[in-house]
This record gives sequence, C-alpha cells and structure tokens, in this order.
Amino acid sequence: MVKNMERWIQSQQCRKWDLHSLKLQPLSPVPSDIEISRAQSPKAVDVLAKEIGLLTDEIEIYGQTKAKVRLSLLERLKDQPDGKYVLVAGITPTPLGEGKSTVTVGLVQALTAHLNINSFACLRQPSQGPTFGVKGGAAGGGYAQVIPMEEFNLHLTGDIHAITAANNLLAAAIDARILHENTQSDKSLYNRLVPVVNGVRGFSAIQLARLRRLGINKTDPETLTEEEISKFVRLDIDPSTITWQRVVDTNDRFLRKITVGQANTEKGFVRQAQFDIAVASEIMAILALTTSLQDMKERLGRMVVANDKKGQPVTAEDLGVTGALAVLMKDAIKPTLMQTLEGTPVFVHAGPFANIAHGNSSVLADKIALKLVGEKGFVVTEAGFGADIGMEKFFNIKCRASGLVPSVVVLVATVRALKMHGGGPNVTAGAPLKKEYTEENLQLVADGCCNLQKQIQITQLFGVPVVVALNVFKTDSPAEVDLVCKIAKESGAFDAVPCNHWSAGGKGAVKLAQAVEKAANQKNSFKYLYSLELPIAEKIRIIAQKVYGAQDIELSPAAQSQVDRYTRQGFGNLPICMAKTHLSLSHQPERKGVPTGFILPISDVRASIGAGFIYPLVGTMSTMPGLPTRPCFYDIDLDPITEQVKGLF
Amino acid sequence: MVKNMERWIQSQQCRKWDLHSLKLQPLSPVPSDIEISRAQSPKAVDVLAKEIGLLTDEIEIYGQTKAKVRLSLLERLKDQPDGKYVLVAGITPTPLGEGKSTVTVGLVQALTAHLNINSFACLRQPSQGPTFGVKGGAAGGGYAQVIPMEEFNLHLTGDIHAITAANNLLAAAIDARILHENTQSDKSLYNRLVPVVNGVRGFSAIQLARLRRLGINKTDPETLTEEEISKFVRLDIDPSTITWQRVVDTNDRFLRKITVGQANTEKGFVRQAQFDIAVASEIMAILALTTSLQDMKERLGRMVVANDKKGQPVTAEDLGVTGALAVLMKDAIKPTLMQTLEGTPVFVHAGPFANIAHGNSSVLADKIALKLVGEKGFVVTEAGFGADIGMEKFFNIKCRASGLVPSVVVLVATVRALKMHGGGPNVTAGAPLKKEYTEENLQLVADGCCNLQKQIQITQLFGVPVVVALNVFKTDSPAEVDLVCKIAKESGAFDAVPCNHWSAGGKGAVKLAQAVEKAANQKNSFKYLYSLELPIAEKIRIIAQKVYGAQDIELSPAAQSQVDRYTRQGFGNLPICMAKTHLSLSHQPERKGVPTGFILPISDVRASIGAGFIYPLVGTMSTMPGLPTRPCFYDIDLDPITEQVKGLF
Repeated sequence: MVKNMERWIQSQQCRKWDLHSLKLQPLSPVPSDIEISRAQSPKAVDVLAKEIGLLTDEIEIYGQTKAKVRLSLLERLKDQPDGKYVLVAGITPTPLGEGKSTVTVGLVQALTAHLNINSFACLRQPSQGPTFGVKGGAAGGGYAQVIPMEEFNLHLTGDIHAITAANNLLAAAIDARILHENTQSDKSLYNRLVPVVNGVRGFSAIQLARLRRLGINKTDPETLTEEEISKFVRLDIDPSTITWQRVVDTNDRFLRKITVGQANTEKGFVRQAQFDIAVASEIMAILALTTSLQDMKERLGRMVVANDKKGQPVTAEDLGVTGALAVLMKDAIKPTLMQTLEGTPVFVHAGPFANIAHGNSSVLADKIALKLVGEKGFVVTEAGFGADIGMEKFFNIKCRASGLVPSVVVLVATVRALKMHGGGPNVTAGAPLKKEYTEENLQLVADGCCNLQKQIQITQLFGVPVVVALNVFKTDSPAEVDLVCKIAKESGAFDAVPCNHWSAGGKGAVKLAQAVEKAANQKNSFKYLYSLELPIAEKIRIIAQKVYGAQDIELSPAAQSQVDRYTRQGFGNLPICMAKTHLSLSHQPERKGVPTGFILPISDVRASIGAGFIYPLVGTMSTMPGLPTRPCFYDIDLDPITEQVKGLF
Repeated sequence: MVKNMERWIQSQQCRKWDLHSLKLQPLSPVPSDIEISRAQSPKAVDVLAKEIGLLTDEIEIYGQTKAKVRLSLLERLKDQPDGKYVLVAGITPTPLGEGKSTVTVGLVQALTAHLNINSFACLRQPSQGPTFGVKGGAAGGGYAQVIPMEEFNLHLTGDIHAITAANNLLAAAIDARILHENTQSDKSLYNRLVPVVNGVRGFSAIQLARLRRLGINKTDPETLTEEEISKFVRLDIDPSTITWQRVVDTNDRFLRKITVGQANTEKGFVRQAQFDIAVASEIMAILALTTSLQDMKERLGRMVVANDKKGQPVTAEDLGVTGALAVLMKDAIKPTLMQTLEGTPVFVHAGPFANIAHGNSSVLADKIALKLVGEKGFVVTEAGFGADIGMEKFFNIKCRASGLVPSVVVLVATVRALKMHGGGPNVTAGAPLKKEYTEENLQLVADGCCNLQKQIQITQLFGVPVVVALNVFKTDSPAEVDLVCKIAKESGAFDAVPCNHWSAGGKGAVKLAQAVEKAANQKNSFKYLYSLELPIAEKIRIIAQKVYGAQDIELSPAAQSQVDRYTRQGFGNLPICMAKTHLSLSHQPERKGVPTGFILPISDVRASIGAGFIYPLVGTMSTMPGLPTRPCFYDIDLDPITEQVKGLF
C-alpha cells in the first residue's frame, strides 16, 4: 500500500531533482587524481538514489558508494518521456587520449551542480588489466572524476568477473565436448547426455529445443532412431574453426598464443588457442547492447563458437549452456550507480573493446538514465576512440539496438592533437612532449583543424547537431583556443567552446553545458548511414568511403570467403563493426590529418552473432595487452592501517 | 557523539542477542534444495547485522542478503571474551560426502533458533567451477541451508574473483619479467625500471626494499655500481623452477597442461605451464589464514614463485607486485555475512583446497564470530575431508595461525559410510546405491565402526572432547542408529547423537546442540601434535604414524631433495599440510576401515611460503576438475520474468 503510493507519487511528480551537490574547492596546481578523489567524501549511494527518484526496492547496494539498479524501473517509468541524449565523441586522438571521459563527467557536473538541470553520465567500466599495466585508471581526471576512483577502476560490482566466468565456462564446454565426442560411441554419448534418473529417461528443456532445431519432433528418448541419435549427440565441431577464445582480465602477453590439452587425460586432442583480455569477450558486447534479461539470454544462446564439419554454425545453445550463462550474468545486467566529484549521478556499465567490438557503454544504462532525468534532463554517454570509429558504431550499431535517437554530439578536441594533425612531431606515451606542443604555434593548429573539420562532417552525415568541446591545457595560448573555436564554427559546428573542467570542475564546463542545451533544441534529422539489407561488402564500402574518406576497399581472399560464408549462413543483414586503428582516419596510424586516396584493405571478416554484428579486420588487432618492463604496479600500494589505496592514477 | 555512545552501549551490553528467527514448516517428502531455499524469505541483511550487534559502519551491504563485515570490529571488541569454538569434522567419507556442512548449519539453527543461544556458522565459499560441472552447490542441504543458496553458490561478494585477478597478475608478471630480462641489457632494464620522471630518477618504495634485501644500502639511483645494477635488475628466474600457476574458477580440463608464449611477440620464450582451479591458489590459503590487512600484505609479499639460477627463492615482493596484490584483495579480506534457513547468522569466507592446502574457512571469520557470539555463545566451523586430514590441519595449521583454542569437535558419521568401511560394496557418485545401503545390515555397521573409532582416537590426540553426530538417512534402521551411538560412546566420544536437521531443520539437531553445549564445559587440554622445530621429515612421520596409522614414510629422491632445499632456504620450521586422498586413512583410496602396515610414499614436497606451510604430495593431486559429458549446466536456467534460478542443487 505504502509502496504503491510511493510509486504513484513518483510517476506523477515533476522530475526536477532535489539533488544536494557536493562542493568543490579546486587547488592549483591540480593534485593527482587519487588525491582529488580521496579528498572528496561521496554521498551514501542510497541518499543519491533517493534524490534522483529511485525507489528503495529498485536498488541493490554494494558497499557505501555503489549500487546496482534493477531493470524493473523501465517498466515503472515506461510512460515517462525520455530526456535528451548526448554523445561525447572525439577527433582522431594522440596515443595519450584527448579527454572524452573527462568532458563527459565535466559536462554533467556543469549541467546538474551548476545549472540545476537533471543529468546523468553513462560511462564504460574499464578493464582491470591495464590498471596494473601501463595506463592507470579511466574515471575521468582532475576535478571531473567519478568517485571513489579506486572502486571505479578495480572490481566495481563484479560485472567483468561475471563475463570472464561465463566466457570461460563456454570455452571449457567446447573443448570438453570435442573430447567426449571423440572418445565415445553414439550410444554411450546418448546414455550419458540423456541418463536414466530415478528409473526415468527424459530430455532437459535445452535438449528438446535442440531436437526441434534438428527437425526431430520427438520428446520420448526411447523413440529416436539411430540416425536421429547420432544427429542429436554429435555437434561435430571442426576444431580449426573455433572462434571462441578464453579470457582473463589481466595483461598477460604469454597467453596470446598457447597450446591447450597437453595433459594425458586429454588424450592427445591438443590444439592452438589464445586468451583475450576479458573486455574483448563477445559477452561484453552483448551486455552493452542488450535491452532485457530475455533478450540477453537469447543473444547468449545465439553466439556462434565454431562451425561443424559441414560448415554449419555451432552455438552456445547447441552446447546446452545458455541458461547457465544467463545465470552467471543475471546481476551484471544491472547498471552500477556511482557519482561525480560534485555528487551528480553516473552509471558505469559495460566496456566492450572499441575495435573488434563497438566500444560504447550499455544501452540499458542509457535507457534507465533517460527515464530518470525526465523530459528536460540530459543523458551524456561516451563512444570510444575518434568519431570515425566510436561515433559511427554508436549510431549504426548501438542506436539501432536501442531505438534511441541522439540529440547532440559533443566532439572533443585538443590543441595538442590538432597540432599533431597539422604536422607536429610524434606523440608517444611515456616520452616528454616536444616543444611544438608546449609553445604557441598557430600554423600547426590551423593546419591540423582539417581533422576536426572532417569529424564534424562525419557527424553531419547522421543529421545530428555537433558542439565542439575544446579541452584546454595550461600550455594552450588564448590565440590557439580562439582559432580552433573559430574554425570549428566555420566548419558547421553548432558551437565550439573551450572547457576547463579538469582544473575547475563543473564550473569550467558551464559554457559547454549551455551550448549543449541550446543545440539539443535544434531540429534533428537523425538517420543511419546504411541500410542493413545491403550486401556485407557494400556496407563496409559505405563506411570506408563516406566516413574514412577511402577511395575504395579491398577484401583479401580470406575476407571474401568469410563474407560469402556469413551471407550463406543468413547473417548478411547484420550491421558492420569496423576493427581499424583509432590513430588515423585511414588504416595507417602514421597518416594524420585527413588522409585521402587510400584503399582500405580488409584482411579478414569475423562475426559476433550474439552481439549482432560483423567485424571486418583492417590489419591485425591485438586483443591481449602486455606488461612493460616497469608496470604501474610498482607504484600501487595499500596502507594497511587507513586501508587507503596509493599509486592509482 | 551518537556513534561513540552506540559503541559504548555495544561494548557493555549483555551479549544475548534479540534475534528474530525465521519459522520453518518442513514438508515431506523433502523438496529440492533450491525449492526449499526459494520458499523462505531471508531477513534483510542489515536487520540481521543489527540483531547480532554489528554497528552500521561495520558492515558493507551487497544486495539484500549479503554484507561484508569490516575488520575494525576486532579492535572494538578486543576486550570481549571469545565464545566457544566448535569444529565439525568427519569420518572417512564415501565419494558422496557425509554432510558436514549440513551438520554445521543444522547445529547453529538448533542452538540459536531453538535453544536461544548465540551461535554463528563459519563456512567455506565453494568454487564456482563444480557448480556447473558435476556436483552442484555447497550451502548445506534440505532444511539446513544457507540462503539464498544461489547467491552462496555463485559470485557471492567476489572474493574468488579477486583471488583470480591477484593470482593471474602475479603469473603475468613472472613471464613478462623473464622476457624483458632476456631481451634487454642491464642498462636498458635499469633505465626502464628506474625511469627519469619530470627530470628526477627515483626508486619506488618496493624497489628500495629490494635493494635492502640485496644488501645495497643506497637510495640514489645514480650511485649504484654496474655490479649492483645487475644484481638489482635481474631476478634471473630459472623457468624450470616456476611453481606459480595461473588459475580460473572454471572446470577446464584442457588447461591442465599447456604451452604458453607461442606468439611472435614473445620471441620464442615458450614454456610448459598449467592452470589450476582458482581455489587452489596460494592466495586463497593466505586469505584463510591471515589475521589482518598488514599480515595479509606480508604473506602476499613472501610467496615464493620460483628459484633463481643460483637456487635462491624469488618472491612476489621481488617482482614488485605486493602492493597491487593487496589492493586487489582489500575487500576479499572481509568475511561475508549471510543467514541460515532459520535466520541465524553465517559467515562465508575463504575456501582453500583440502589437499594441497588446508581446507578450512578463514581465521578472520572465526575470530569475528567468536567476539560477536560473546562468552556463552558458539562458533561452529568446518574442516574439509575426514578428520585425519581436515581436522589435523585445522589444529596444526589453522589454530597455530590464529592462536584460538577449540572447545569441542563434532565428528560426523553416516550409517552409509560406516557400512562401506565394514566391507560394503563400492559407493560411486551418479550410480544408484546397492541394497546393502538401503536395507538394515547390523554386521556391516558394526564392522565399519572401526573407522569411527580411529577418528575419535585421532581427535583425542589433540586433547579436545568429541561429540559424534550421526546424520540419519530415512533408510537407516533404529537398530543401526543405536548401534553406532553405542559404539561411539564406548570408543571415548563424550556423546553420540542421531540428527535429523536435513528433514526437520534446527529442531532435528537440538539433541546434538545440547550435547555440544555440555561437552564445551568439559576440561580441555588442547595441544598440537608436533613441534615446529622438528625436521620436516620427522613432522611428516608423526602425522603419518599417529594420525594415519602408517608404519613409516618413504620419501622419493625428488621429495628428499625438496626437503633439503626448503631446509636450506630457511623454511624448515613451517607446519605440514599433507596432500593425501580423503577416501582412506592410507594413501590408497580403496583401503577402507582402518588400514595398517602401510608405508606412506611421499612423491614430492612443495611449499606455500606465504600461506606458511610445506605440502608433501602423497600421490598425484588433481588441481583442475573437468566437465563430464553431461555437465549440470544442462539443467540450469534463469527465468527472465521472475529472475529465478532453476536447476542448482
């Protein structure tokens, strides 16, 4: 009764939050990220949840600062109009990254803590591997961060661990099945797969579904013919076609290529395999694209892990493991609520690879956030890499899966990256920046704006207004900043705004927030770039030509044969997820600015059928990072008295 | 102020809990475990926490039914006397297990829900691997269970995932280090390990500690001689001596023996390796034995992963990874609070292997529980396998680490296992039981009681009173039950009691609870079995002769050379953790009853230096289970509407 009343009030109420923001007193020089994070006391997460209209039975608290949000909320608020949907994308970055996460966080701090507009940031959960390898955390930076940053960067609420467990259960099931099929007769397999329990022999539900797929419409195990038994018990996996790999959330380069099955108990069925980093698992891509528990279960079942010896796809469902995978993922499907340094809400959910997958946070977090902010509120989400990759996939893959229509794109640029595109010297992680980057150089900036211009044009292909956010560094001169904003506006941006959230928090992004709000009220004629009905190669060509500026594409024989296979298998109408370097619009990372006249070489074509996309490989993509000679773990420590984490950055 | 007052009241209060127990209405026939679990609504975990005297800032809630408990409680209650400490052990079991977990849970349900005595059960967290393989869950069974059983059996609060992450970070660091040392000069290694950052070159704290261990008392990187640099930068790991393995929490038999490093990027440094199941990690054993965050960090640093080419041990600390491992384990060190079917408290914490490790739940959970129950309360904890293994290790390893003194041992027996020891036919998992086990057979029972008698005698070696708990099955006849209890008492048990908690809940274990309470007030003359100062082989001999009844031991040359090596390395005074089959008192699983006249063969000797024990191998121990032809995942499913898990048992 009280619950029902609470629900009714919630559904009727004006959606302006009564949110208590946390005050910031930025220091100069800006301290390290972990020091800033630690200096701010986050609100208890149940307090935050209440402030933004979540009911007590819609959250599951994990410690003081994290909570999972139940999907039941989507049903409760289904008649509530969505808020405005903002994507943060970027120009072609340097290897250091240009601060998309920081802009995302700074923007919502500005919207909610300074302009009193409901807003939510939706971020990807970072892989734990690199946290101990070379790059450190991914919670934003400076005075635009998600806190506590060590919680964000470590286990969080266990979603990546759940993905690892599900991924590896499926991998183990594949090899064990091949072994059992190779060492047993049809009869013996059948007796074990369909055993007599308490005097009765019966199929499990997932076995009945397989029988139906095989066209065997029987339910009594005693009535199958020998031929039907053979069809039923043998998946007949061709080991050379296995595409399902094991994963760990650790940078372990020695697992890039391995031989498995060398113990005597495996009777000689060795094969070459590999481990990928956990976030490269197709299950991560599914988590990011799914819209409900039912949908997730179906996608998990559809995942193709290999072909059989006749060239037909073998799925997780065929292996009988769909239900177990769904059980392992039942909590991971709920987005995790955290907060920014200024106490505004953040969802952290899913973090698929941005090359072999689509590199965007979850559809479900965005959907829930769009309901929670209400019609006049804003949800700011982020796409990996430059706009040519992350944004293109956001529109053509993620928006297709969700049905959501974006209102504005924020395109992040830095003077540093623009100078690189203008012909500046190489920028490498770990090495000090050359003087071109620390002293004013208007010519390099002007020359490099071609990349910004091109990325703006790419955005316009999709019919969505674009606001350029220039992430200002202290070495940028006012003239450089003005020049970028001027060129951006001349190139078709709705607005272009310098931002200082890194050093000043949300206050430093207020102008950006105002520009975004204004742009969101512009006419929007959002459209996808290609029709799904086109042949696979044609869809690849459209992306290559219209987005990357390629002259044409060239498929290797291997790639062509995969295209033919997927088309034959009925997967031809999936969207395309390009696996291309993010360091150039072309396939050659050293070609900066706006390369032209190149033929994009497609070396291979693969598919994530459960996630729902075909991914052409443009060159080789590493799916397992390594540890350098001096990994960051040398600096990471735990104070056993205060329990404080040191050295994460 | 309010917090302080709350603390003061808590520390002064009479410790009898005002606990609201959950009512049970047992059905007959007894439904499946998951059905029973689902039919009971657990209390909100914060309510339970308050009932047992935990302060609000001492718990971290994980969802509705689980909470982690902070170690700060040990400081607050340090002057509070401990409760009584009860160990549940068993006779030599059949492969089906004889119900120690069920007795543990039934006993606390009886003590608290029926006799109104404060009590806590401390259980091991089960590995997730077998949940999807052959055996199903481990939350007790019938009407003596931890609920919700699916939470207990799946990710819980992520501790095993944290162990996996820490274990594999260390594994990756070993191989990456070998590669970097093999491909770089001393100078290049030094420049990378001690880089110039912002113009300054400095050692990290963990590098300074390594310098001190090497006898180099310098802090300025510029002052090291070439020889000192070489000593510092080269761990010089001998790859053939690496004992640190990677782990996954999945039954993946194809990872039992593998070759790693076969990608071109690893430049030919391939080697043979293996994955173990995650709970076999030494880090799990450390979690179970540690007494504080500081102690855990030191143990993690001490772990020996290999020898260098001079035969000296190489540790996690040498690899610079101690702090990172501690950071990954900072939440796992906190025990997880759950509840029984009758709403009484349970800690679930750590679950090390019972052969290559000591098979007991955590010291910290026991310590915290002993404070929470108060002087007149009871903490019931469980040891893996039969008393000859699990209990012996509990006393000689776990009690040594904790300094705690046990009050009573509950020795679990079943008519089924006793008949097997009396000469009954083989008992195998999956096959129906022979009629000897379902019909009365007093002779088999009488003959088999020799094993019970022997296990009682083993308990008496340690000077602790023993109560026999006969776990009654519906096929056991009253005469069989009476006979076992009579023989047990004649053999020196303080009492022997039939129990029916499986079918009746705590009510069915009230007599056991009363017997345990009485036994706890007996005189107790607890002592360890051997002095740590004895030579390694002598300690092994004492266990083999006094506990197993062996005539003598025989060390293989490999085992002898390891004993010599560990003694030389200064590890000779650690306790012994025997890795022996649990299916016989001897090393031969088929020898039931009380085998005599055997020589125990020690094939190899290994060490877990961080956990703090030497483990002799008696035969080969599998550290990676496999998936059978029809794994239990065929029956596991998730209802996408109700979110209910099906098929776990």
